[in-house]
Amino acid sequence: MILDKINKPNDIKKLEPEEVILLSDEIREFLIKKLSKTGGHIASNLGVVELTIALHLVCDLPKDKIIWDVGHQSYTHKILTGRKEGFDNLRQFGGMSGFPKREESDCDVFDTGHSTTSISAGLGMAWAREMKGEDNKVIAVIGDGSMTGGMSFEALNNASDFKKNFVIVLNDNEMSISKNVGGVSNHLSKLRTSDNYMGLKEDVMHSLEKIPVYGDKLIRQIQKTKSGIKSLVIPGMMYEEMGILYLGPIDGHDINAMVKVFEEALRYQGAVIVHVRTKKGKGFIPAERHPSRFHGSGPFDVEKGLPLKPATPSYTDIFSTVMRKMGDRDRDIVAITAAMADGVGLKRFRNMFPDRFFDVGIAEQHAVSFAAGLATQGFKPIFAVYSSFLQRAYDQILHDVCMQKLHVIFAIDRAGLVGADGPTHHGAFDISYLGEMPNMVIMAPKNKWELSDMLKFAFKYDGPIAVRYPRGEAFVNYKEFRAPIELGKSEGIFEGKDVLLFALGSMFRNAIEVGKMMKAEGKQPTIRNARFAKPLDEEYILDAIDKYKCIVTLEDNVYSGGMGENVSDILYRNGYKGKIINISLPDDFVPHGSVGELQESLGMDPKSIYDKIKEVLQ
Amino acid sequence: MILDKINKPNDIKKLEPEEVILLSDEIREFLIKKLSKTGGHIASNLGVVELTIALHLVCDLPKDKIIWDVGHQSYTHKILTGRKEGFDNLRQFGGMSGFPKREESDCDVFDTGHSTTSISAGLGMAWAREMKGEDNKVIAVIGDGSMTGGMSFEALNNASDFKKNFVIVLNDNEMSISKNVGGVSNHLSKLRTSDNYMGLKEDVMHSLEKIPVYGDKLIRQIQKTKSGIKSLVIPGMMYEEMGILYLGPIDGHDINAMVKVFEEALRYQGAVIVHVRTKKGKGFIPAERHPSRFHGSGPFDVEKGLPLKPATPSYTDIFSTVMRKMGDRDRDIVAITAAMADGVGLKRFRNMFPDRFFDVGIAEQHAVSFAAGLATQGFKPIFAVYSSFLQRAYDQILHDVCMQKLHVIFAIDRAGLVGADGPTHHGAFDISYLGEMPNMVIMAPKNKWELSDMLKFAFKYDGPIAVRYPRGEAFVNYKEFRAPIELGKSEGIFEGKDVLLFALGSMFRNAIEVGKMMKAEGKQPTIRNARFAKPLDEEYILDAIDKYKCIVTLEDNVYSGGMGENVSDILYRNGYKGKIINISLPDDFVPHGSVGELQESLGMDPKSIYDKIKEVLQ
Repeated sequence: MILDKINKPNDIKKLEPEEVILLSDEIREFLIKKLSKTGGHIASNLGVVELTIALHLVCDLPKDKIIWDVGHQSYTHKILTGRKEGFDNLRQFGGMSGFPKREESDCDVFDTGHSTTSISAGLGMAWAREMKGEDNKVIAVIGDGSMTGGMSFEALNNASDFKKNFVIVLNDNEMSISKNVGGVSNHLSKLRTSDNYMGLKEDVMHSLEKIPVYGDKLIRQIQKTKSGIKSLVIPGMMYEEMGILYLGPIDGHDINAMVKVFEEALRYQGAVIVHVRTKKGKGFIPAERHPSRFHGSGPFDVEKGLPLKPATPSYTDIFSTVMRKMGDRDRDIVAITAAMADGVGLKRFRNMFPDRFFDVGIAEQHAVSFAAGLATQGFKPIFAVYSSFLQRAYDQILHDVCMQKLHVIFAIDRAGLVGADGPTHHGAFDISYLGEMPNMVIMAPKNKWELSDMLKFAFKYDGPIAVRYPRGEAFVNYKEFRAPIELGKSEGIFEGKDVLLFALGSMFRNAIEVGKMMKAEGKQPTIRNARFAKPLDEEYILDAIDKYKCIVTLEDNVYSGGMGENVSDILYRNGYKGKIINISLPDDFVPHGSVGELQESLGMDPKSIYDKIKEVLQ
Repeated sequence: MILDKINKPNDIKKLEPEEVILLSDEIREFLIKKLSKTGGHIASNLGVVELTIALHLVCDLPKDKIIWDVGHQSYTHKILTGRKEGFDNLRQFGGMSGFPKREESDCDVFDTGHSTTSISAGLGMAWAREMKGEDNKVIAVIGDGSMTGGMSFEALNNASDFKKNFVIVLNDNEMSISKNVGGVSNHLSKLRTSDNYMGLKEDVMHSLEKIPVYGDKLIRQIQKTKSGIKSLVIPGMMYEEMGILYLGPIDGHDINAMVKVFEEALRYQGAVIVHVRTKKGKGFIPAERHPSRFHGSGPFDVEKGLPLKPATPSYTDIFSTVMRKMGDRDRDIVAITAAMADGVGLKRFRNMFPDRFFDVGIAEQHAVSFAAGLATQGFKPIFAVYSSFLQRAYDQILHDVCMQKLHVIFAIDRAGLVGADGPTHHGAFDISYLGEMPNMVIMAPKNKWELSDMLKFAFKYDGPIAVRYPRGEAFVNYKEFRAPIELGKSEGIFEGKDVLLFALGSMFRNAIEVGKMMKAEGKQPTIRNARFAKPLDEEYILDAIDKYKCIVTLEDNVYSGGMGENVSDILYRNGYKGKIINISLPDDFVPHGSVGELQESLGMDPKSIYDKIKEVLQ
């Protein structure tokens, strides 16, 4: 095995050229084998095996800095920097992260997870190099999807002022997570089909030289535009117009070609985009055919190319069904996604109501203000988005939606702990960041029927409103509890005494488990489904003051600005004398691992909660 | 006066052509006269008089929708829509807003205040029109500065998919608030100097047709690039490459020329950028010469062209001085601004240390991740920014700075109430949105010396850290209280009994005033300077539990997630039995007005606080 020779950074440089080619095959086999057991971002990683090898051949790590935008495509980078053993525990609790982590290796220079940050961070590192008078290389590797994110544009705009070397590798697999949209995508399509830059440029210049009279006139006219001959022949005109050199497109599976162009790019004094075309899932037919299915997958059967576990209906599935029905019933409903139609469950809506579906690309800020614009004209826009990705649009939610009290609905998927993706993907802050915004309403369902009821309530309501629900399997018990949703009203489940469990959303399940443990000991706790994080059911909370010696709040959001803090505030302020236990996420970033393991480690699992209550009651 | 004939929307259309020209002069005089008394955004409004007139001539309001990006340039629009009387109380408490407000007029279709949102909102309105089968016009008016904001790029990217009319007027005054930066700015400079689009296009096409052999070959080669002849001749190539038609540049003070081009643009089926060149401050020499001074000014002397009040040193001035000194002392310090070098007080730093100063344009997201990149390499980046503008970078602060515990310093100007600019500019949320982020430290100074000490502390500290301070005059008393800054420690001012006033930042001044009122009645309150909103001085707060029957927290941030909520939480949780009074901003958007008037209306002025304490103590 060639792979056995790869044990630390730069080992790859000792290989013979033909060994390097073999290595790429071995890495693919290695990744398929390992990820079939642990799960992970198989498709995107299979796409960048050669690209990563080529980068490692031209770089000297850790001196040189490679910033992996999004970061979930850094597996080959991890293998080449001495971390192949980590793949047995990839994304497992306590195991290796699925993203670059500065704490994990000095070859990881920037923690990424969201997209679109790499050019900004890389430009900072490149400037730092110049100010220190050092000579390391800085290379940002960014996907075509991320190029639609406004932040990458802001960074390119600044990179154009940088007169020293800074390489941006545009890893173009013709999709981000799902299909790309908009002008940049169209621009890239044009580039893909265009001839090779160098050849074309030579051709045209040659032709112009040969035109005796008209040629001169033409050249003068072209020069009038001040962008000169360049604009005529360079396919990456949009980037060139911004002042950034464009090289490409290059076959992202041809190591030699890439090494040659990277070396050329690294000699240029300025920011340069190297456009590399790769194929998501390359070398594993099921992933090539269904890159979305193999975007971030669980363990799978290599032979069959299918996930090992049959998918149980998730909250996302329920959302998808409700949207299909509601879309049919109410023609004012329009749905918006930021490049995640699959992930958030809007595929069916898109297929049924293509005229009322908008995929804006990785552009959460625009998504929200675009929704606000639609809402001013009487439509009911719903933006379905992951909790941690919505963070990008904080200002737009506050100013464009809440300040104008517009009826925009936020369907917030992946709220709370998400598991293996870890700290960049946990939806740990949405109750806080939405809760501090005036006019906002925040709900969380206890089970799948309630998600449906809450969405319907949200469409009927008139103002900014959010429904947050967790990743994964929907809770399907307690169907019989389905009191109509009323603004700011919680729902009674079991009436008991001494202890009140006031649980929000996914933590309802834990409250039920705690309740069972207590009942087994002859205690009768009250279990209450909070439903609203804002506005809180103040009436109920005030009523509870004289009834319980212990009140437990349960939520999967940080304490600061969360539901628990607000419930406690009401209780204390109104003279509550009993004990309050707040179950919430810590004031810290939560690592990756299964939700169960994470909850245990944080004291949020039923047993830990039960123990805390017991301790307090004694 | 022609202006007398303008009393409601569309009145302008009844004027004779020569009257329209006279009207623009009258409006200028009117604005200079009125704003010299009330203050306001004089320079930008004088720049768009003709542009606004031209838009009103081609539009039918309120049916048609004009979205004013940033919004502070909407004064002529207000005059032309029947609101000229409002200028006597412009930006005054209870008076007319300096920004578009949907509540104020049905001709204001979107509340703006931050920049860069207009294309998104406009695109939403244009889609809404199509879905409803209506035929109103939608026109977004956006400045060249806002075009560097990533959100406008996200919106343009989407607008290119829109196959119906949507007009974007690019109001190019060659600066946003201060000078522009980056590739887009360079691109626009090129456009400004290029020949007129139509003429050039015809010329080149004609020439090509006349070239018999080589011409054909050239055309074929040009066509290979798939962008065809267009790319050769159109100056707005960057936008054209994104799939957006570009028209311009046009003289923004030539009403007839603009009307002609607007009418043409409004016939186009797709998104079209009309590039209009205007002069900030046009017609008022002092504002033409010093557009930054007359960006958002107070009352001024028309003859002398100078502000009426001599400027008293502001916190911004103190920041400016400290940065100059610290920059000299520590070569690792680099300063970043998002197009606000003047506003945040970085001009002197820029002049002294141009190599360590970065103006990234209106690009707060990029600014923060760029700072993070610099911090990974050992530099000490400080991002000086207005509180409400930093909201744009919520996600980047959380993920790129806090998650990686990077030493990025946030100098947050305009924290708390800002006065006349109103709800989009009040810095009402920063303690909340930063406080919920793990690893973040938040300070606020009581006076100018403490701002200096805190900045020095921030540079010495190693991790994410913010100093927030208000707009306007720095507090210059209590110089004698200058205990060294210690992480999470508050500062004793007066030791008393019964009542503790625990005050943060600008509210320290109010606490002092309350203290005086109480002393006048023989009471001896304790006054404590909180200094840190996070981490809180828990030790001191715990000590206070048995000492005071009443504890008052004072801050100029919303309660949810603010300092008061956290102090109360510690007090109650540890068995405090006394009364707590939390002085903070309401869970609502605060209107415009002077800070004094706003504080009074919110019960945050010394007298109101004093009354509350008195009531509680009785």
